[in-house]
Amino acid sequence: MSHSNRTLRLLFPQWQGGNNPAYIFGAKLLDYLSPASTGPREVINVDAPTDDELPLENGIRGRQALLRQLSDAEDAIARHQPERLVVLGGDCLVDLAPFAYLNERYNGELGVLWIDAHPDVMTPKEFDHAHAMVLGNLIGEGDDDFRRHVKTPLKPENVMIAGLGATLPSESEFLDKHGVSSMGPAEIGDDSMAIIDWIEARGIRHLAIHFDLDVLDPSHFRSVLFADPTAPIGSFDGITQGDMNLNSVLRLITDVDTKTDIVGLGITEHLPWDAINLSSVLAKLPLLRSSPSA
Amino acid sequence: MSHSNRTLRLLFPQWQGGNNPAYIFGAKLLDYLSPASTGPREVINVDAPTDDELPLENGIRGRQALLRQLSDAEDAIARHQPERLVVLGGDCLVDLAPFAYLNERYNGELGVLWIDAHPDVMTPKEFDHAHAMVLGNLIGEGDDDFRRHVKTPLKPENVMIAGLGATLPSESEFLDKHGVSSMGPAEIGDDSMAIIDWIEARGIRHLAIHFDLDVLDPSHFRSVLFADPTAPIGSFDGITQGDMNLNSVLRLITDVDTKTDIVGLGITEHLPWDAINLSSVLAKLPLLRSSPSA
Repeated sequence: MSHSNRTLRLLFPQWQGGNNPAYIFGAKLLDYLSPASTGPREVINVDAPTDDELPLENGIRGRQALLRQLSDAEDAIARHQPERLVVLGGDCLVDLAPFAYLNERYNGELGVLWIDAHPDVMTPKEFDHAHAMVLGNLIGEGDDDFRRHVKTPLKPENVMIAGLGATLPSESEFLDKHGVSSMGPAEIGDDSMAIIDWIEARGIRHLAIHFDLDVLDPSHFRSVLFADPTAPIGSFDGITQGDMNLNSVLRLITDVDTKTDIVGLGITEHLPWDAINLSSVLAKLPLLRSSPSA
Repeated sequence: MSHSNRTLRLLFPQWQGGNNPAYIFGAKLLDYLSPASTGPREVINVDAPTDDELPLENGIRGRQALLRQLSDAEDAIARHQPERLVVLGGDCLVDLAPFAYLNERYNGELGVLWIDAHPDVMTPKEFDHAHAMVLGNLIGEGDDDFRRHVKTPLKPENVMIAGLGATLPSESEFLDKHGVSSMGPAEIGDDSMAIIDWIEARGIRHLAIHFDLDVLDPSHFRSVLFADPTAPIGSFDGITQGDMNLNSVLRLITDVDTKTDIVGLGITEHLPWDAINLSSVLAKLPLLRSSPSA
């Protein structure tokens, strides 16, 4: 069956959820790198960064901007009522409106494969970056302003976190309490059988996939936060980093594609440092820069 | 004075000089990352890679394709007779026709700042990749088929190699014999004074700059050959790698820009592995791939 005219592609260059304007460039380059869309496409406008620090609003950086962008994404999706959604982020929080929509559309029975080194179930008590809270919100937990946008929370037992690394005590407690499943790279294995067994055991008929690029080993895929070449040594000490590679993620997604109907795909946290830094230098070079004297 | 309408921009996605089709993607992305051109622009067509190995022809891989592309670049430049040239490569050999043209135009007095970890003065006796021979050809040495395209060879004493790393005995011998100057990153220093002194001592009025991205430290800028994440460990043992960073190259170019007239700028050897690999995966993902079933 042809999906193309029922698949909405959302370009969502949100940066406030990770408080890093580099996500804007990352989203645009991700769009450039993606096959052209044959269906409808919406671009969510995000506030441009300013010289001022993003305000900390009741425990969340950029709360008002994030909520406004969340509403805009909901409106864009409502205009199309798509069967399927592709989301090109932007920080992880871009998947909040799309996955909430999909779970409503599929009667609260949506399965979610959350491919991520982190569970994204924090609350403002632990951290002020909302991109670390999005899966918690989708399950109906966390900050009221965000979770109230999720009309039909995901069934926690329909969520599988793949590629999960070491978790903090508060994260482990959340996953245990709600019965969210997870597997590290070794458990996924070479044939994805453990994930396929979970899909079949849960009877998942419609699946949304969140692919956070920071599930990838930053020594092999360097376009992620932890591979920032300008970060001082030790900047990310104690923070869990990814351990998968691009081909193993591709294989996992391809394997589950044969077992269930993939209705959502979000790709997030693209921070292409080389392209960002090179582009900035090219803009200043003689014969290339656009200035009155060039 | 306004240069824009006298500056020709050449997009030259040549890959055969380094026998690596990834240069095609690298050139296109370099073009995407560059400020839009306000003047004329030419794209040199290059043969697409095939499943067959690039033929070794009388000591040089892809000799016939390279010579055909060299002629095409000459023709494109001849159509415009520009005062200034920007070249977006492609492998290092892309600067052969442009720099030969500029030296003719500026009466054999062109200065060349060759920002590169390698001197590019090999011959087919040492290696079969023509991108390692281009500066030798510009000085009038090396393979006859290539050097005969250089009507007015560069004065070797008008060439400065900046960022040069350890050289092979045959390379050191060439540089000594011809009197080509070079400086490593430490000699260039923070104020570029040694290079500026050389420009003034040589009376360089028109300067072309070759910026081989592999002059950059591959642990900080990963879009170069030596940072290929799929290369087996030890692949580049014994091969000189870059030791500069983007900002120090920008500073050097900005410094010399105040002292002489920059008439040429070639940027080469862009191999953006993350973008190449991610793009390849995106093309295969459900909801993104363009296939009969998507």
